[in-house]
Amino acid sequence: MAQITSPLPADKQKIVGEALHGALIDLLDLSLVGKQAHWNLVGRNFRSLHLQLDEIVALARNGADNAAERAVAVGVNPDGRAATIARDTHLQQLDFGYIEDGKVVAVFTEILGGIVARMRERIEATDDADLVTQDLLIEVTEELEKQHWMIQAQR
Amino acid sequence: MAQITSPLPADKQKIVGEALHGALIDLLDLSLVGKQAHWNLVGRNFRSLHLQLDEIVALARNGADNAAERAVAVGVNPDGRAATIARDTHLQQLDFGYIEDGKVVAVFTEILGGIVARMRERIEATDDADLVTQDLLIEVTEELEKQHWMIQAQR
Amino acid sequence: MAQITSPLPADKQKIVGEALHGALIDLLDLSLVGKQAHWNLVGRNFRSLHLQLDEIVALARNGADNAAERAVAVGVNPDGRAATIARDTHLQQLDFGYIEDGKVVAVFTEILGGIVARMRERIEATDDADLVTQDLLIEVTEELEKQHWMIQAQR
Amino acid sequence: MAQITSPLPADKQKIVGEALHGALIDLLDLSLVGKQAHWNLVGRNFRSLHLQLDEIVALARNGADNAAERAVAVGVNPDGRAATIARDTHLQQLDFGYIEDGKVVAVFTEILGGIVARMRERIEATDDADLVTQDLLIEVTEELEKQHWMIQAQR
Amino acid sequence: MAQITSPLPADKQKIVGEALHGALIDLLDLSLVGKQAHWNLVGRNFRSLHLQLDEIVALARNGADNAAERAVAVGVNPDGRAATIARDTHLQQLDFGYIEDGKVVAVFTEILGGIVARMRERIEATDDADLVTQDLLIEVTEELEKQHWMIQAQR
Amino acid sequence: MAQITSPLPADKQKIVGEALHGALIDLLDLSLVGKQAHWNLVGRNFRSLHLQLDEIVALARNGADNAAERAVAVGVNPDGRAATIARDTHLQQLDFGYIEDGKVVAVFTEILGGIVARMRERIEATDDADLVTQDLLIEVTEELEKQHWMIQAQR
Amino acid sequence: MAQITSPLPADKQKIVGEALHGALIDLLDLSLVGKQAHWNLVGRNFRSLHLQLDEIVALARNGADNAAERAVAVGVNPDGRAATIARDTHLQQLDFGYIEDGKVVAVFTEILGGIVARMRERIEATDDADLVTQDLLIEVTEELEKQHWMIQAQR
Amino acid sequence: MAQITSPLPADKQKIVGEALHGALIDLLDLSLVGKQAHWNLVGRNFRSLHLQLDEIVALARNGADNAAERAVAVGVNPDGRAATIARDTHLQQLDFGYIEDGKVVAVFTEILGGIVARMRERIEATDDADLVTQDLLIEVTEELEKQHWMIQAQR
Amino acid sequence: MAQITSPLPADKQKIVGEALHGALIDLLDLSLVGKQAHWNLVGRNFRSLHLQLDEIVALARNGADNAAERAVAVGVNPDGRAATIARDTHLQQLDFGYIEDGKVVAVFTEILGGIVARMRERIEATDDADLVTQDLLIEVTEELEKQHWMIQAQR
Amino acid sequence: MAQITSPLPADKQKIVGEALHGALIDLLDLSLVGKQAHWNLVGRNFRSLHLQLDEIVALARNGADNAAERAVAVGVNPDGRAATIARDTHLQQLDFGYIEDGKVVAVFTEILGGIVARMRERIEATDDADLVTQDLLIEVTEELEKQHWMIQAQR
Amino acid sequence: MAQITSPLPADKQKIVGEALHGALIDLLDLSLVGKQAHWNLVGRNFRSLHLQLDEIVALARNGADNAAERAVAVGVNPDGRAATIARDTHLQQLDFGYIEDGKVVAVFTEILGGIVARMRERIEATDDADLVTQDLLIEVTEELEKQHWMIQAQR
Amino acid sequence: MAQITSPLPADKQKIVGEALHGALIDLLDLSLVGKQAHWNLVGRNFRSLHLQLDEIVALARNGADNAAERAVAVGVNPDGRAATIARDTHLQQLDFGYIEDGKVVAVFTEILGGIVARMRERIEATDDADLVTQDLLIEVTEELEKQHWMIQAQR
Repeated sequence: MAQITSPLPADKQKIVGEALHGALIDLLDLSLVGKQAHWNLVGRNFRSLHLQLDEIVALARNGADNAAERAVAVGVNPDGRAATIARDTHLQQLDFGYIEDGKVVAVFTEILGGIVARMRERIEATDDADLVTQDLLIEVTEELEKQHWMIQAQR
Repeated sequence: MAQITSPLPADKQKIVGEALHGALIDLLDLSLVGKQAHWNLVGRNFRSLHLQLDEIVALARNGADNAAERAVAVGVNPDGRAATIARDTHLQQLDFGYIEDGKVVAVFTEILGGIVARMRERIEATDDADLVTQDLLIEVTEELEKQHWMIQAQR
Repeated sequence: MAQITSPLPADKQKIVGEALHGALIDLLDLSLVGKQAHWNLVGRNFRSLHLQLDEIVALARNGADNAAERAVAVGVNPDGRAATIARDTHLQQLDFGYIEDGKVVAVFTEILGGIVARMRERIEATDDADLVTQDLLIEVTEELEKQHWMIQAQR
Repeated sequence: MAQITSPLPADKQKIVGEALHGALIDLLDLSLVGKQAHWNLVGRNFRSLHLQLDEIVALARNGADNAAERAVAVGVNPDGRAATIARDTHLQQLDFGYIEDGKVVAVFTEILGGIVARMRERIEATDDADLVTQDLLIEVTEELEKQHWMIQAQR
Repeated sequence: MAQITSPLPADKQKIVGEALHGALIDLLDLSLVGKQAHWNLVGRNFRSLHLQLDEIVALARNGADNAAERAVAVGVNPDGRAATIARDTHLQQLDFGYIEDGKVVAVFTEILGGIVARMRERIEATDDADLVTQDLLIEVTEELEKQHWMIQAQR
Repeated sequence: MAQITSPLPADKQKIVGEALHGALIDLLDLSLVGKQAHWNLVGRNFRSLHLQLDEIVALARNGADNAAERAVAVGVNPDGRAATIARDTHLQQLDFGYIEDGKVVAVFTEILGGIVARMRERIEATDDADLVTQDLLIEVTEELEKQHWMIQAQR
Repeated sequence: MAQITSPLPADKQKIVGEALHGALIDLLDLSLVGKQAHWNLVGRNFRSLHLQLDEIVALARNGADNAAERAVAVGVNPDGRAATIARDTHLQQLDFGYIEDGKVVAVFTEILGGIVARMRERIEATDDADLVTQDLLIEVTEELEKQHWMIQAQR
Repeated sequence: MAQITSPLPADKQKIVGEALHGALIDLLDLSLVGKQAHWNLVGRNFRSLHLQLDEIVALARNGADNAAERAVAVGVNPDGRAATIARDTHLQQLDFGYIEDGKVVAVFTEILGGIVARMRERIEATDDADLVTQDLLIEVTEELEKQHWMIQAQR
Repeated sequence: MAQITSPLPADKQKIVGEALHGALIDLLDLSLVGKQAHWNLVGRNFRSLHLQLDEIVALARNGADNAAERAVAVGVNPDGRAATIARDTHLQQLDFGYIEDGKVVAVFTEILGGIVARMRERIEATDDADLVTQDLLIEVTEELEKQHWMIQAQR
Repeated sequence: MAQITSPLPADKQKIVGEALHGALIDLLDLSLVGKQAHWNLVGRNFRSLHLQLDEIVALARNGADNAAERAVAVGVNPDGRAATIARDTHLQQLDFGYIEDGKVVAVFTEILGGIVARMRERIEATDDADLVTQDLLIEVTEELEKQHWMIQAQR
Repeated sequence: MAQITSPLPADKQKIVGEALHGALIDLLDLSLVGKQAHWNLVGRNFRSLHLQLDEIVALARNGADNAAERAVAVGVNPDGRAATIARDTHLQQLDFGYIEDGKVVAVFTEILGGIVARMRERIEATDDADLVTQDLLIEVTEELEKQHWMIQAQR
Repeated sequence: MAQITSPLPADKQKIVGEALHGALIDLLDLSLVGKQAHWNLVGRNFRSLHLQLDEIVALARNGADNAAERAVAVGVNPDGRAATIARDTHLQQLDFGYIEDGKVVAVFTEILGGIVARMRERIEATDDADLVTQDLLIEVTEELEKQHWMIQAQR
């Protein structure tokens, strides 16, 4: 079976692989939890949040795809299977059922805040290991911090 | 908190809710497993399958969104959280790591075949309960059966 | 003068014609009442509702056009004249003047709920008479129930 | 409840409000009667007229929306409800049933001629009251007179 | 050689296969006969009919492709070869040479009427066999009946 | 150096030049103050107002460009430098820091009301001087009054 | 033969007809002379002027079409035949052969200046006769004066 | 002043220059006479012919631009001034005033027939002189003959 | 009935008519046989060939339409009826049922090779008869030879 | 009132805030001064520079928006009010009135050179403070240096 | 290994192969030398020439691709490797470093003139060998001669 | 002659200039060798590789243009002439003639691997010299490593 050779030495590949796996799980679960809120949302701000959550889901899906393809490009197998997400996610999970708009703002402020903090650790971790990966993480972090602000602003 | 009233009586709502939850889990996990294969694929047919898997993911994401929004429209809370997918999925799970093109064809033939069989049960189950939901299930089934053919044809 | 021959026998044509006339009046008046609210709306949620009402109007106009063209395609003359709408409509009418956002949510929850209930009767009525017409009614009902949910969610 | 302040003094607001209400009713009923003919038309020129009537409907809907939004922008509540249209319209009403192409040409020549004459009175009436409203009326009149010519040319 | 497994049991597959073969031949020959008239048309209504015939051809080609791909998706080989069309078609054939506009209206009224009647038999035949195929047949029938009306309206 | 000849005599050119300079400063500062609020906004209606403010900025930028190019076309040098805006603006200035949604509605109601009043004076002033310039002022005033209504409606 | 009825009384129709004929001839010849320069141009500024001349031609063609269709809409036959243009044009004619860029700037400064002066007379002439026609003349004059500035600025 | 060098020897340049001048005049006058008919047309087929004439005008304008730019590319100055068109045109001229649809069909059958005959002489004339120019003439002739057929077909 | 006059004398018209009829039959049957393979294809290269066959079908349909419209433009009636195709085609016919990818490559290499050879005879035959038709045949031959290469390259 | 929490500690937030404020003022004033030159420009290169200045304005507006939204995303209030720009700008200010093309090239060479130098200090300053902000500054600097080259190249 | 069969006999294939190789080298080197000038250009006409050179590069790349794919379609291997271009090119090479606008005009006048002359020899050479290839060469020559004129016109 | 001033001191400019020249030659030759393989490719995977090679060529052309424009923006003359590419390239050169699909995969795995290794050295080299250039190199490296993975995956 084909082996994808890595442009990185083994130690750097390991660091990069861990950073990308962490980003992948954060972003994939953000896409799932974002849709869960998009569907179960109620409250006077329903329409604005319903639309904003879809922007967050789009950003999460796109970021996850970039992270996973970056992983395989450096010879690391991405793992975005449902059981892996459920096992490895750090995101606060939503309760089953309807969720009010104010609650969505509070929860996603926390969720995005947590992802951003972990992304910043990954940016630091990859600074010596791989500037190409770091650049990819910087770009998605900029978008996440923008959404973090725009959710917080609604409190 | 707002309650979404249902256009369906309780017994029919229950049937419809179960059918839609099943479809939602099938389609969400298809989107995850499709991406997993899209990323870890190797083999001479890499490019064709890589592209086709993204078509399948797009169909799965769109179908899942329709199923979930249909559920809430009939007063049933959709549940597409990672733990729920991991717990409720019927899809064959991929092993970690690279997966060869021939294996992808074999696995997705089985996965799509399984989803199609369950979708046909849901179409039957909703025949008396709600023709609107049934129509939505018929449409996504048509697309799934088309992809099922196009994967099989490559064996 | 040209006569449009019908693909349906007279008894089925009659059932189908009545279902389509009912749908036509519901949808045309929905487009008028939707614009009336779009224009006279006030309140903190003005912008979200103003935009959503235009989505409802677009769906109503498109659905009305489909229903009317379906009617003439089965040899039944559609009647969407102002006096006919005024005479035959079942929709709650808005008072003259400004209408607050909360009131719009309440009124359109009722209006859409009523239309959906009548559309479901028409879907049932056409089940034996004409599956082609029924399919058209199912599609517009799916969209109406989706808007019904999204209005209710804002209560 | 919010009150929309007017940029116009009360006497001018009254003149403008009447002009815009008249335009709104003319244009909304033109959109309804245009669709009625679009659907029930027969004759050798069916396809050309069927398409042209949709252009007229599009112009009428767009013009009505502009007139109504202009009214509320000057603090006057627009009224485009079905009963108001039925009560206030000056347009010749179509008979129920099929309508031949030659008849459509004759009727819409008269209908458009009538609207144009009333629009010209409104342009004159608003000359002292509000040049902004007048400009809006001039633009829609130019389009109406163009359609008036193109219908007449087919006699 | 790869075998496409069917989601249908053999008896239902047979019914569905026959319905789809019939639809395929009707639609393929409609695309050929539509182009034949598109090219050889003369008369005062040349341009309107020339354009409408291309709409009919587009609908026929698209419908044929859907029918054929649906057939193979249920494990039935579609057969759209020239000799098969010539042998199995039920459509009235055009004479060689110029064809006048009035004649085109008459012939296509008959051709479309015939196809619609046969499509309705196929919709009925597939009601127990396969709702997915039935839905596909319903959709193309709706479009065919619309064109049938719009051709007739020109008599 | 090239001199742009004016189509207007000197006295009319002076009137037109003053009207256009006033419009230019109003619109340029509206674009700056609109962005300032777009960035510093907080509150539950954040997303709706954030988007609407960008519509206002787009209208202001486009209107300013038209006014300035009109000025030079009549031989008058437009002056949109930062110091000139700061010196000549009539717009209420925002305080530094976050601004709540309700405050934005109040402030922009006042700002747009003021601009509209000045634009109406300019429309009057140019009535004898230059109908071409007047028409340009009328068009931007229509858009400003529409935004004025849509901001007020949210009070 | 069909007669296009005019919304204007005879005396006003005469004034409007003359204004529109003048505009039509100015704009049609501008489109011809613009192309003549576009083709025969030489000099260091070739590319910029070659492109700008095509913008002027596009504006002239569009303006001519609007003027002619406006004429027939008020019951006046437009006359844009080659011999009429050659007979009635007021535009400076270009010599046969290559024309240098500086010469183009000089000639089109004069040509556009002349057209603008005549358009302003027509705007004045139609002020009492027909505000709809006047508005059309104002719009094309604004564009012509903008091009006049941009040509002059290159001297 | 810049001189455009020709890729052709003088004798061939002369032949090509004459062919292109002839084509230019034919096509420019076709664009003028096409618009003249587009504006002054009356009759039951108004709309179809009105639209087709604009297709002919578009083809004529595009063909004329290609011919003129080809001329200058081979070092020959194109001449498309109004007086030149009026002097050199071979096209049948329209009478002033309304023109009936049947008359338009007859006149444009003759006009297009004449242009096509002259274009064929030009194709022959350039066969030895310049295959690049010939190819350009062949392409526009194909389009002209297609329009010639489509006009004739309406007799 | 209208007669389409030919720009060609009778002997040349006959040659051109035969060349175009041959091209029409080749291209129409290529569109049918291309779709037949598109649907019944199996094998590891399914997806690539499935897509390429649709490119071939698109080229064939477009080329057939051009050939047929060229025929009528020179006064020859095109004949693309199913029975005519079945009778006159020179293309190798496919067997009923699934067809493997390698077989498709072999068969379409032969089919395209045959069409190309016949098209080259037609190009030669029309060299004296009609350069306009010849140019149309050259263009479609270039596309066919490109597809011929791209199919062969897969052997 | 909502407080936007910062992903940065206070000392880094201060550095980042200053860098972004500096960038914001540079870019906002570049957009104003760019428009000022766009409007008042004269000279033989008018058209090229007029268009290029609009590219610079577009880049400046987009960069300013990114900088301001980045500031608020890290909890710093952006300040882009007219008085602040006038007070804090480092850009060379244009004199009132017409400005020749050569002068524009000289002035914008200096202006862009100054901005680029300050942006490079900001890139350095943020290297330890925030790589996300640094990346945003790098991107806009790349565009500014490209425009700097393209302006200089015209000297 | 697959062999691409040629539609041409060996002697004609040889002529065609040489013509296409010559065209390929001319066009590929034109794309390289065009970019070299696009990047190193200075002078007052920088922006116009910078843009025009990119049009020339686009035409050269597209023409080269067509020539190479035509070669392989007739069974001749195209050779566009860097060393082959460097060895076989006939184009005047640019000196290293900045190149002034006037110099670019002079050099590209010569380069395009040379290519055009060689293309005309190739058109002649292929007249007996392959009309399909000749047509491809004619089309690219028309575009090259147009650019040749537009460069020369700037001298 | 204009001199482009550099934002970098001489020592850093030298480092950056060398990195960009290296990148330019790598990317330009990648575009040439990519097209060479695109044209001469044979084998069962022809179509997939043919399309992928064009994606690589597009990425190479775009990256080369960015690198060259970045060089001139920092005052370094780019050199992308054919002889320079032939002299300086490090890429494995293809043999003349057909190249099989498996060979293409092997060769481009090596070519892309080599470019990536050199790009990583350039990213390191510019880390102290110029972060703006480094960012540009990082972006193109990310794309190259992605293509490297996707080629390798096909082995």
